[in-house]
Amino acid sequence: MCIKCEIGLASLSLEYLFHPRSIAVAGVSGDSDSFNAGLRYLLIMAESGFKGSLHGVNPSGNEVAGFKIYASVRDVPGEVDYVISAIPARFTPQLMNDCVVKGVKAVQFFTAGFSEIEDAGGKKLEAELLSIARSNGIRIVGPNCLGLYCPETGLSFSPQFPRQSGDFAFMAQSGGNSVNCVCEASSRGIYFSKVISFGNAIDLNECDFLEYLADDPKTRVIGVYLEGARDGARFARILRETTKRKPVIVLKAGSTDAGVRAAASHTGSMAGCNDMWESMLRQAGAIRVHSIGEVVDVASVFLRMSFPKGRRALLIGPGGGASVIAADDCARAGLVLPLLPAASREKLKQLIGTETGGGFRNPIDLYRPDLLKQAVEAVGDWDEFDVLLAHLPFELYGLMPDATKDAIRSVFVQAVLSLNESLFKPHAVVLHASTADKSRQQAMELQAKLSQAGFAVFESIGRAASAMNKAIGYYEWRQRAMVGDNGRFL
Amino acid sequence: MCIKCEIGLASLSLEYLFHPRSIAVAGVSGDSDSFNAGLRYLLIMAESGFKGSLHGVNPSGNEVAGFKIYASVRDVPGEVDYVISAIPARFTPQLMNDCVVKGVKAVQFFTAGFSEIEDAGGKKLEAELLSIARSNGIRIVGPNCLGLYCPETGLSFSPQFPRQSGDFAFMAQSGGNSVNCVCEASSRGIYFSKVISFGNAIDLNECDFLEYLADDPKTRVIGVYLEGARDGARFARILRETTKRKPVIVLKAGSTDAGVRAAASHTGSMAGCNDMWESMLRQAGAIRVHSIGEVVDVASVFLRMSFPKGRRALLIGPGGGASVIAADDCARAGLVLPLLPAASREKLKQLIGTETGGGFRNPIDLYRPDLLKQAVEAVGDWDEFDVLLAHLPFELYGLMPDATKDAIRSVFVQAVLSLNESLFKPHAVVLHASTADKSRQQAMELQAKLSQAGFAVFESIGRAASAMNKAIGYYEWRQRAMVGDNGRFL
Repeated sequence: MCIKCEIGLASLSLEYLFHPRSIAVAGVSGDSDSFNAGLRYLLIMAESGFKGSLHGVNPSGNEVAGFKIYASVRDVPGEVDYVISAIPARFTPQLMNDCVVKGVKAVQFFTAGFSEIEDAGGKKLEAELLSIARSNGIRIVGPNCLGLYCPETGLSFSPQFPRQSGDFAFMAQSGGNSVNCVCEASSRGIYFSKVISFGNAIDLNECDFLEYLADDPKTRVIGVYLEGARDGARFARILRETTKRKPVIVLKAGSTDAGVRAAASHTGSMAGCNDMWESMLRQAGAIRVHSIGEVVDVASVFLRMSFPKGRRALLIGPGGGASVIAADDCARAGLVLPLLPAASREKLKQLIGTETGGGFRNPIDLYRPDLLKQAVEAVGDWDEFDVLLAHLPFELYGLMPDATKDAIRSVFVQAVLSLNESLFKPHAVVLHASTADKSRQQAMELQAKLSQAGFAVFESIGRAASAMNKAIGYYEWRQRAMVGDNGRFL
Repeated sequence: MCIKCEIGLASLSLEYLFHPRSIAVAGVSGDSDSFNAGLRYLLIMAESGFKGSLHGVNPSGNEVAGFKIYASVRDVPGEVDYVISAIPARFTPQLMNDCVVKGVKAVQFFTAGFSEIEDAGGKKLEAELLSIARSNGIRIVGPNCLGLYCPETGLSFSPQFPRQSGDFAFMAQSGGNSVNCVCEASSRGIYFSKVISFGNAIDLNECDFLEYLADDPKTRVIGVYLEGARDGARFARILRETTKRKPVIVLKAGSTDAGVRAAASHTGSMAGCNDMWESMLRQAGAIRVHSIGEVVDVASVFLRMSFPKGRRALLIGPGGGASVIAADDCARAGLVLPLLPAASREKLKQLIGTETGGGFRNPIDLYRPDLLKQAVEAVGDWDEFDVLLAHLPFELYGLMPDATKDAIRSVFVQAVLSLNESLFKPHAVVLHASTADKSRQQAMELQAKLSQAGFAVFESIGRAASAMNKAIGYYEWRQRAMVGDNGRFL
């Protein structure tokens, strides 16, 4: 049974978690040079622009890296809204008791070593923490988690996280996957309203956080990494309501025997039956994905592209062989590549010529990116496609010297940027680079430029096509679900 | 009907293609600064260390970038073994006639604009070239292709190609995909015996090249990119014989309606029915893949790992959530993750402790790469696994400052390098980086170090697992196929 149902708190009340006035971190020691998790929390939040007060706690007291350290949470002057525990598991009940005395509202346990380890003591400790929390109205985030990232208020748990806010929210049982998601997304121009790493979720769990994010006006799209559910039935119910308002992208891991075992070791989760999850997620209108990269792919479609009315794609970019593989990848991922009509093909032939081959049927095999805008305009009166995919394979133009290839890539970026102004269809860009150093470096540069300009940028045609197919599937589901409903669209 | 069957040349005779004493390139003009394909061929081969003589041909004669230019192939002094055509399609019959007079053995047509374009003239031109070739015993590579890369003799078609030789061969109907394959492979430490880009394949085709590579003592593994077959029955026959001796990795593109159409536009190929190809490739013991990256993944297993006796993997690396996804990815790709026995788990617990969680069951969630070797040794007496996968997700250790993370990555590389000496099981490394700049750059550096040291390096657990599963499937197939056969193993 879920604590929230018992004590009837409204999900909106979780807003206070993201706006603490003062934070105390238990387990701060060492100096700036050595690694101490507690100290790192203080340093990272100070760097992230946290406006409230930050305090350190350690039985030995003193001062560390400019932060005054108190022997106990009870000794911290003034009110303490939020406590982060970075102390060994065996000391956590004492910390909880101190938090009760101090009137702390919520405690996040970075501390691991609870139900996820093969030791009866871990489960017992969790029960003890939960009991203290429930008797005293303190909420727990975790244990075994990295906690909260909210760029607006300066809450953070990684020095890599940007200070810029966005409208994507990610909630995850895994801290590492949260870090991965923020890094992947922000390098592609997607920023966050909130990220919640909630680990073993003994008190506040997936249901509470999803319900909160569903109502959060600063969140437009939600990503979820889940290993198991504490309250599956309630989660399904909340999910079904949430998806009517916002897309929810779910990476449910622990979906194979080996994964189930790994999930138990990681967050003590009962991962459950994959078939059951699959059908629950489908019925609830969630979008299921299988990697953090895919979470960001699908979020990019929602956040960076206008709504594609259907699955008919027009594919344009250099490379005969690359175009054949791209066409296969699109089709396999559920997109359709309609044949360009003869009149359009003739226009392209006039524009491009036949010296580099005859790819005018869709895909359009365009070796000269300086003609990209003209080529798109030449077929622009043809209305039988829903989305434009411009792609650039980096290992082409075999014969060309590096300088010429560099120039071609610059022209491609300029041409794509010019599309932004003239084209009414939703469009996306695929930069497919090999693992060769130069290729990767150039892809990173171009990705940065195009992401900053607002484009959805993908690493491969297959990933772009699959993300679009899933996003379109969600729009279709929602249209069906909304019949007779007053809910609003995005 | 295939020219080879008609005139009964042995495939081994194609050896001369890779050892021309002199090359003439038709269509050389401009200067080093402007792009001219013919001139680029001359410059690239000179840079690649081609030892024979290189000549340019252009009706206007003169000299370009230090190369003497002759008005016709007929005017080039001495014998000409190999001609590369970079002239417009309409002039190619005349070039062929000149080659007849000169006694040229083979002509490669970079020139495009033949059966791949929507114009009856293109098909007619091809027939004309073929007729001249057959009447005069000249072999044609292409048209609409980039030609040959043979580091041993200095044949090349890209300034990006390494001069180092290896034992992987790639034959492809696509020049761009050939470039992609060489760049991807060489950045991962895989080098080539030969690469053949053969385009429309009007004379020498997939059958001839595969038969040649099957017999080539310098080739240990063969990759094939194919859009359609000129002689499907013969190709199937040769493929079946080849796979008994060497692994053949086949990317058959044009396997969806859109792909079939793109293939027709690209190389004039009839891509054929996908189901038929699927069953032919399976029966012939070929390994089917769907991207150039996957070609290199599977080649890496053959060329950089010892033979895994089965599909039981031991997975070790940092990250609880990363381990859960990794376990799922392994299982989905066909590998099995056996549960570590209690005694081994206890040893790991003693070694690692429980402060960072409890992932000792397999996957092993190891946050401290300095303990990698000790952890592997701790479970080394347990013999129930066939392959070790060490992995490093780059976006972990959320709280840590960059310098600490950099140090961890260095320690990981050293630890993996030390495995090389002590471990008897086949093993591979996965470096999974997000698209964030720093992460990508570090992954490139680590990849270079580990590739140079001889490791198979992959970008994701899923790709590594899938490549291993496919390679193991091939070994199993060959064992079945070899029963009662005297063929030799790799």
